[in-house]
Amino acid sequence: MKALIYQGPGRRTWTEVPDPRPVEATDAVVRVDAVTICGTDLHILKGDVPAVQPRTVLGHEAVGTVTATGTAVTTVKRGDRVLVSCISACGRCRYCRTAAYGQCLGGGGWILGHRIDGTQAEYVRVPFADTSTHILPDGVSDEAALMLADILPTAYEVGVLNGRVRPGDTVVIVGAGPIGLAAITTAQLFTPGHIVVVDPAPARLEAAKRLGADVVVGAGDDPADAVAELTKGLGADVAIEAVGIPETFELCTRLVRPCGHVANVGVHGRPATLHLEDLWIRDLTITTGLVDTSSTPALLDMVAAGRLDPTGFITHRFALDDMPAAYDTFADPASTGALKVVLTRCSGQG
Amino acid sequence: MKALIYQGPGRRTWTEVPDPRPVEATDAVVRVDAVTICGTDLHILKGDVPAVQPRTVLGHEAVGTVTATGTAVTTVKRGDRVLVSCISACGRCRYCRTAAYGQCLGGGGWILGHRIDGTQAEYVRVPFADTSTHILPDGVSDEAALMLADILPTAYEVGVLNGRVRPGDTVVIVGAGPIGLAAITTAQLFTPGHIVVVDPAPARLEAAKRLGADVVVGAGDDPADAVAELTKGLGADVAIEAVGIPETFELCTRLVRPCGHVANVGVHGRPATLHLEDLWIRDLTITTGLVDTSSTPALLDMVAAGRLDPTGFITHRFALDDMPAAYDTFADPASTGALKVVLTRCSGQG
Amino acid sequence: MKALIYQGPGRRTWTEVPDPRPVEATDAVVRVDAVTICGTDLHILKGDVPAVQPRTVLGHEAVGTVTATGTAVTTVKRGDRVLVSCISACGRCRYCRTAAYGQCLGGGGWILGHRIDGTQAEYVRVPFADTSTHILPDGVSDEAALMLADILPTAYEVGVLNGRVRPGDTVVIVGAGPIGLAAITTAQLFTPGHIVVVDPAPARLEAAKRLGADVVVGAGDDPADAVAELTKGLGADVAIEAVGIPETFELCTRLVRPCGHVANVGVHGRPATLHLEDLWIRDLTITTGLVDTSSTPALLDMVAAGRLDPTGFITHRFALDDMPAAYDTFADPASTGALKVVLTRCSGQG
Amino acid sequence: MKALIYQGPGRRTWTEVPDPRPVEATDAVVRVDAVTICGTDLHILKGDVPAVQPRTVLGHEAVGTVTATGTAVTTVKRGDRVLVSCISACGRCRYCRTAAYGQCLGGGGWILGHRIDGTQAEYVRVPFADTSTHILPDGVSDEAALMLADILPTAYEVGVLNGRVRPGDTVVIVGAGPIGLAAITTAQLFTPGHIVVVDPAPARLEAAKRLGADVVVGAGDDPADAVAELTKGLGADVAIEAVGIPETFELCTRLVRPCGHVANVGVHGRPATLHLEDLWIRDLTITTGLVDTSSTPALLDMVAAGRLDPTGFITHRFALDDMPAAYDTFADPASTGALKVVLTRCSGQG
Repeated sequence: MKALIYQGPGRRTWTEVPDPRPVEATDAVVRVDAVTICGTDLHILKGDVPAVQPRTVLGHEAVGTVTATGTAVTTVKRGDRVLVSCISACGRCRYCRTAAYGQCLGGGGWILGHRIDGTQAEYVRVPFADTSTHILPDGVSDEAALMLADILPTAYEVGVLNGRVRPGDTVVIVGAGPIGLAAITTAQLFTPGHIVVVDPAPARLEAAKRLGADVVVGAGDDPADAVAELTKGLGADVAIEAVGIPETFELCTRLVRPCGHVANVGVHGRPATLHLEDLWIRDLTITTGLVDTSSTPALLDMVAAGRLDPTGFITHRFALDDMPAAYDTFADPASTGALKVVLTRCSGQG
Repeated sequence: MKALIYQGPGRRTWTEVPDPRPVEATDAVVRVDAVTICGTDLHILKGDVPAVQPRTVLGHEAVGTVTATGTAVTTVKRGDRVLVSCISACGRCRYCRTAAYGQCLGGGGWILGHRIDGTQAEYVRVPFADTSTHILPDGVSDEAALMLADILPTAYEVGVLNGRVRPGDTVVIVGAGPIGLAAITTAQLFTPGHIVVVDPAPARLEAAKRLGADVVVGAGDDPADAVAELTKGLGADVAIEAVGIPETFELCTRLVRPCGHVANVGVHGRPATLHLEDLWIRDLTITTGLVDTSSTPALLDMVAAGRLDPTGFITHRFALDDMPAAYDTFADPASTGALKVVLTRCSGQG
Repeated sequence: MKALIYQGPGRRTWTEVPDPRPVEATDAVVRVDAVTICGTDLHILKGDVPAVQPRTVLGHEAVGTVTATGTAVTTVKRGDRVLVSCISACGRCRYCRTAAYGQCLGGGGWILGHRIDGTQAEYVRVPFADTSTHILPDGVSDEAALMLADILPTAYEVGVLNGRVRPGDTVVIVGAGPIGLAAITTAQLFTPGHIVVVDPAPARLEAAKRLGADVVVGAGDDPADAVAELTKGLGADVAIEAVGIPETFELCTRLVRPCGHVANVGVHGRPATLHLEDLWIRDLTITTGLVDTSSTPALLDMVAAGRLDPTGFITHRFALDDMPAAYDTFADPASTGALKVVLTRCSGQG
Repeated sequence: MKALIYQGPGRRTWTEVPDPRPVEATDAVVRVDAVTICGTDLHILKGDVPAVQPRTVLGHEAVGTVTATGTAVTTVKRGDRVLVSCISACGRCRYCRTAAYGQCLGGGGWILGHRIDGTQAEYVRVPFADTSTHILPDGVSDEAALMLADILPTAYEVGVLNGRVRPGDTVVIVGAGPIGLAAITTAQLFTPGHIVVVDPAPARLEAAKRLGADVVVGAGDDPADAVAELTKGLGADVAIEAVGIPETFELCTRLVRPCGHVANVGVHGRPATLHLEDLWIRDLTITTGLVDTSSTPALLDMVAAGRLDPTGFITHRFALDDMPAAYDTFADPASTGALKVVLTRCSGQG
């Protein structure tokens, strides 16, 4: 089969490799029908994630069709159309037992396209298939489901649920990349009073408005003013960090009111300063987290019920064989305007 | 001033009585600009609420303008436009300290139009004004605010919040009178996957659909079938009882899935049967409650932000002086289609 | 091997039957080192649980040693000393994913000694071994662990956690049989202010006092008076029903204060009356439930740390071969004073 | 009357000043029967709290007897024995309505001995007396109650409740001064499996053991090793910061396991470094906070019920007139071993 291979920092190839087969009794093999690229894949390519070995197939998001299962797999079978979660779950460890699958101690967690071969290929081996895939309801398209492999549950769980967004809240989202936009979409499930989005890029603020932000704050403006005006000077109820740099994290801690919540979603490479000399007295709750994908079944139900449309994040579509072009497009959003790209298997393939 | 006086079972008059004045240091007097009638007022008139003494002014919902305050009132002042809450709160007892104002032990709770004179009058004395009124934001109309005096916080707190509605849930609401309809409206703040409404009256089911129900179940149909179809036979996540008779309560306990929630909102006059021989094993949570109006500030913010429009419940409008006609209309919904009636002060009055 | 066989209503035998072997890839076989008898076993013997087929081995509580595992079992191995939980968990269904194992839809739940052969035998086949057994820490005795197979997690989860006991609360426990006594023990994990225990049997009240009740109410006294005296007339914060008849459930709903919790633990055979005409306004939360055993790891840790001693429930000890005598003793607590009986494998056996 | 006056940085006097009288209708005046000194008072004396004006009476903790009340005070009366809370609550603002009294927007919060005259005097004026004092139950001594003015609710709310300590948890408390010791005491209300206490001072570790710590870590040892040994390398469930310097806060973030809680109680003067490059993925919850004293009624109930003994923190006792000596003793704990000092009114006084 063809697969997108990480060849070490700065190098990727779309190459022929052997087809995967079930190795463990709990494995499934899934034919990839739709796949996308994540910002994390770009980080890996830069060499920022040393745990990824050269020769690894990248990718941790896919929708596909089960083609083989190990002997212990009971809940999916050959022919099932499934969502492959970005998080694999052993289902047995103390973290999996509390639905904290992202922290799995039994060999799961984020492993696809990281510690084992991933989804940017014609086929993928999925460990712990019973607890790491989701059968797709009729009426949920491959494209819509694909957005639930990572981006929507990440924004929802780590941003909106950790931030405990409540009806009527003023929510600030700092960063309007794909995750920030997904936070806008999923925050609305709780009907906040106001969604304020902060980003220097005008195109992203346009997307933010289209997806439901009612106030946007660009490069020249002070988000503290915007928040103060909406909240009579008190501060936001919730601030969601969706960038991953110290400045935006620190901004979030300044924008929330006493008793507010700061939910960090961004992936950070450097420490931030926590101004405890101001914050110790303010009754803040600050959360961090990797997605668990525990919300994926509920999100799928909402898509099936027509209550949630996640396809608005998709800006570009490619055939699976155009993987290199898809990467080029996704890696240059300033020129291409790319948010999420979708690659789909041609019907004649496989 | 004129006021609607309860003269004992079956008898009401719209009569001249003395204007109220502040009695306690914490009182305010409010000129009534808009007032409505509650189903509870009809119960009182039938003699079902013996705590109400003859000669009491009825009514526990109003929007108005402060005309006088006691010496200890600090947060509202003469001229402020306020919502008069159906629940008065002493602000000092153990229940008020946990925002359970409906259970106030310090002389509050539901007292207006019950233990003291109420709001269906040109003026009303409001005890504990600091903790029992809400200053209205600009841009919130009297009519919209009036719906937040009782019906919306009741449906929201006792139905939706007690029932712990979550995004994606299947919610069943049994009863599509004003409270059931308000439950439809406020349940949507949490974006349930499906809202199923059960009521024998076709006109009420029409209103339910208009307000956001996606499945309605009338007299000839079995709500268990409708719920089973939406939930693969499992049952609803939440059932909200909005009628107040044993049959509908018992129906709710049958319609929820294991681990589901039954939130009773209806006012009951008779005991119900709880089928513990079936339910003991099903991990149910059943809640009852009187509204606290602790959610009123958040609901007001949502109305101000344009996220919630509560005026869809209003079917009839009257001048304050037409109180007797408004009662006649509200008391005969089968003929008039009345849900909520609003009476407003004529601008020349007062 | 020898096993206690249900031979139809009223008949049990301690008989030779074939040894169990792993059937599914996820099974383990466990040699039973210690086992107990539950009140439910007596109900089965009366014919009250028709799902139990004649020829079934009874029992759903055991501590033992793994002797064989299916090919997909990864977390326990031959030789491990394990607690066999009364609840089996497929680990894959929507209920298991939220730790509601008692409601497992994938073939688990309460199945041992119910739908399949149980633990009152020399060996037992345990389905879903990875998610249905717990490896025992050093320093936790077989006897102590055995109390965590059912009685302690049941009282803790369905009584104490569902009832949301908080430090300082006044907790009423109605019924001082083994489950009620286990509720006394586990309620103390949250340091309630007062534990009031209601039971007509003086011997049980003695046990209640020994385990930590500070007020006991016997046959001639009114528990409402005892609660009122402790709470200035307000009512208990939490009432735990540990009997399973309508009268005791209804008593619990009368004993709690407004905003209180009623946690039903008892297994009921008949419906109860729910006095909604009084309770609709009192902000009650009523819960029912089957144990999930989701708390078992934490309880085991507490036993290992010396923070919890569950051996005080054990009144009688037998060799495994004395199973018939153990049943006789346990079935006649009025004469024998039996709370929990423990049967242990003789060291020469097996 | 005599009072301890802040005369600017480094200077305090025990001087005659005019007796206070009720100013607002909601005020009470309380005769001080017992009073203590807080570490915060020492900070004020160093000049670290510039909001405190010279000529202010210090102190925010007292037990006393009501001698006068304003006209709007309804829940306490002349002669009542009361606890004066360190936090005053207007009872009317959005924060007070959610029991977040520490963040009061209506003129309360921490004001005694800070923005207005405090409790280290023969009499004190207490604003918002209805919502800022607690009538003492019989059987609770002045000394025991005094520990509930600040230290116990601070450790309990900001440390134990914010940290969400659960039965069986491994809890690390960094810092064994009075607040850290109070965290040991109140953490035990939830029966953690292990309490690990970290402090360089051997005398404080002795006190920690006496109050319930089961593992103590002194200057030469690595707390990470101690925690790893108890948790199989996973990390603590909860870490409570009770010092107030960057190093100890950062230590807490390293000691907790994925999904753990860090509850900051310390008062910080400098920013800390938050290692988001490591922590973003670990599902941490970090909280800060000022005490609300919302738990004070429950703590008082527990003291009255004999479930909590807070007098173990008291190391020195003085007559009120010995205020200067008490300050000298409290300010030099390394020599005196002082934890909490209590000053009591001589019976002939007043």
